[in-house]
Amino acid sequence: MELAIKELEEKGKAAKAAAKKLAFLSTEIKNKALLTIAEALIAKQDEILAANKIDYEEAKTSGMSEAMLDRLMLSPSRLEGMAQDVRTVAALPDPVGEVFDMRTLPNGLVVGKKRVPLGVIGAIYESRPNVTIDIASLCLKSGNVVILRGGKEAINSNTILSLVAQEAAHQAGVPHGAIQSIESTERALVGHMLKMKEVIDLMIPRGGAELIKFVSENAAMPVITGGIGVCHTYVDKSADLGKAVAIVYNAKVQRPTVCNALDCLLVHSKVAQNYLPLIAKEWARAEVEMHCDKQAMAILKSTLTLPSPFKGEGLGEGIVPAVDEDWGKEFLSLKAAIKVVNSLDEALEHIEKYGSGHSEAIVTEDYSAAMRFLNEVDAACVYVNASTRFTDGGQFGLGAEIGISTQKFHARGPMALKELTSYKWIIFGNGQVRP
Amino acid sequence: MELAIKELEEKGKAAKAAAKKLAFLSTEIKNKALLTIAEALIAKQDEILAANKIDYEEAKTSGMSEAMLDRLMLSPSRLEGMAQDVRTVAALPDPVGEVFDMRTLPNGLVVGKKRVPLGVIGAIYESRPNVTIDIASLCLKSGNVVILRGGKEAINSNTILSLVAQEAAHQAGVPHGAIQSIESTERALVGHMLKMKEVIDLMIPRGGAELIKFVSENAAMPVITGGIGVCHTYVDKSADLGKAVAIVYNAKVQRPTVCNALDCLLVHSKVAQNYLPLIAKEWARAEVEMHCDKQAMAILKSTLTLPSPFKGEGLGEGIVPAVDEDWGKEFLSLKAAIKVVNSLDEALEHIEKYGSGHSEAIVTEDYSAAMRFLNEVDAACVYVNASTRFTDGGQFGLGAEIGISTQKFHARGPMALKELTSYKWIIFGNGQVRP
Repeated sequence: MELAIKELEEKGKAAKAAAKKLAFLSTEIKNKALLTIAEALIAKQDEILAANKIDYEEAKTSGMSEAMLDRLMLSPSRLEGMAQDVRTVAALPDPVGEVFDMRTLPNGLVVGKKRVPLGVIGAIYESRPNVTIDIASLCLKSGNVVILRGGKEAINSNTILSLVAQEAAHQAGVPHGAIQSIESTERALVGHMLKMKEVIDLMIPRGGAELIKFVSENAAMPVITGGIGVCHTYVDKSADLGKAVAIVYNAKVQRPTVCNALDCLLVHSKVAQNYLPLIAKEWARAEVEMHCDKQAMAILKSTLTLPSPFKGEGLGEGIVPAVDEDWGKEFLSLKAAIKVVNSLDEALEHIEKYGSGHSEAIVTEDYSAAMRFLNEVDAACVYVNASTRFTDGGQFGLGAEIGISTQKFHARGPMALKELTSYKWIIFGNGQVRP
Repeated sequence: MELAIKELEEKGKAAKAAAKKLAFLSTEIKNKALLTIAEALIAKQDEILAANKIDYEEAKTSGMSEAMLDRLMLSPSRLEGMAQDVRTVAALPDPVGEVFDMRTLPNGLVVGKKRVPLGVIGAIYESRPNVTIDIASLCLKSGNVVILRGGKEAINSNTILSLVAQEAAHQAGVPHGAIQSIESTERALVGHMLKMKEVIDLMIPRGGAELIKFVSENAAMPVITGGIGVCHTYVDKSADLGKAVAIVYNAKVQRPTVCNALDCLLVHSKVAQNYLPLIAKEWARAEVEMHCDKQAMAILKSTLTLPSPFKGEGLGEGIVPAVDEDWGKEFLSLKAAIKVVNSLDEALEHIEKYGSGHSEAIVTEDYSAAMRFLNEVDAACVYVNASTRFTDGGQFGLGAEIGISTQKFHARGPMALKELTSYKWIIFGNGQVRP
């Protein structure tokens, strides 16, 4: 353990030294490095896949869930996808060096801001090897050194991927130390890393709620928290029910395991009788398990004959009574809570009480209801008449994403290259003094 | 103490409740409230000055320094100045509600950002009563609730000022709880306040290095640190020596007690022989105490006959040998360190080692030296050919200032209304779902 800490401290020193050089590296070299990394992911796929196989077999033996195994597994086509993502980052504009808000003051001083990297970014993430390359490429492009600490189940995959990226980047002219990874799987090392605030300027945790909570409570440096999405869609009394079916279906079913998927459907009592059977039929076909409050349950009981696997008495296993814990729960699976509300106010109150500040939507044709919802819901992303599944750096046109912030400080919502930077004020004078 | 903590918790609850209302308050009401506060400062000056007198007498009796006493003291003209500052804030544009970065995506979604307040801001500051009104007015304009905790030496002044502001704001339609202050002077209360991260979204410490260090090390919520300025001005070999005298004189003498004042003068060895006697003569007239490295001392010894109070052997008390602690020291008084360097690189290294990331300047006529300095110095504000005394929200055209950040996260350099806000993404759809 002591050895591992000493090694970590050494990496910290090297990171700090590399940060000074990386901040001034030309866009040309950074892009060349990214393209070299993309090439290397393909050229070295045998080594990478062999290392990944070790992780995969071990994880399988130790009983990892299918969903987790799927996230852990690499394949030639997944490596090609990762390489393509790196090429996409290479094609994005370099945020570093951008000069903005420049103006000439009455005394002739020319004052403005210049964008600079944050410095050294720490990333702590769970067992998805693609995150290694994802974060490394975004940090490199934004001029930040990164210290990567992936989950222990992916240790062999992460180590080889980090090594491939380091070598390729260095080959293209990136200073040593720009991409670092922690190979030791000692848990206590994370605790030590979170205290290194003289070295690490920002910590980004990516993973489950527990990891994020641990990092945000223990880190001495700033942390970007996010990724926990308890997302509601509210179908207003004036909703176009056709749109409401499409949007709510998409928000839950298109990819249920991610943070911007729907967790709770709120329906105005005036349209619940008409709307609930429509969406329940669609959701049932997709095998969505519906956790209904009393009113929703009563409506579905009285109106619905559900297809398989929803058998018996017209309802069956797919429709269950909601329990208290269902409100404010991030399901991350084909499950959703359903609640009937009597007003927009009640919907807003429910969202305020149970939402996680991630993504919230209203379906309505009423102008004032739409505006109230947009203004009053306190979340990173607030939608009118669209699926919450769009909350994503790529979808919003940022070209990439390092995470989704649910805090208000520094950056909120999808974060990409610009959100990994700071600025300094630059002042051009010709002898001005303050009177 | 338990009572004080209970009271603080109550204030926290009230602050949280007020934040929801304050976020939606119209610019009209906020401005009316600010103008009412300005009026009340004048109308109630007798009460305010009486309370301030109690603080002043007590502080004087207990041996407070002249400089501190001066900061503590209020007068009719100082109250008029404070009222004028509040009117200035009223006249600034409201940052809240600004919609920006709005664009239409290929799928027809209209996506952008809307500026929102941060929520509840905690302010811990030392014994300057004007800070109470200063912070309260900036927070009110930016839609943030503020919990004020001033120094105990100004407790009577702060309490009455906060009360006057609260009453005036409420009279104009601002919800109760929008401006709160902690009257208890128990020290342990600050520790408790720093843990209230469910209530306080951002903590702003204003005061000396010790206070800022304590807050930043103990706060559970984000903190904006800053206000500590170890500022260098480097006179390059190609400097216009006339400009260099004016700039360096101004940076030290115009207001020596503040964070953007010069602490250390670096002079290139090629111009040191000509330049040092020029600036030393000017500084000596202003009674600046010069802490010189060996080379600077040798030059001044051989060239200078100084006026009073620099008597005896041509040097005297005003010129002393620098000690190790002088490098990286924030003097906050008419003292400065002087060092001769042999190159721009040596100047950059010195600044990197000893600077506090606040304000740094170069005086040069050499284009490449200017550009290198601007790019390579890692500080909130980097100047070419101007006095570091310009680092100020008002001077930079922000209209006001809540502090100067020396961190990179969220905001850097002078902070005003915009820096007290966050944003949310707003998305206007017409039925879009993610493919």
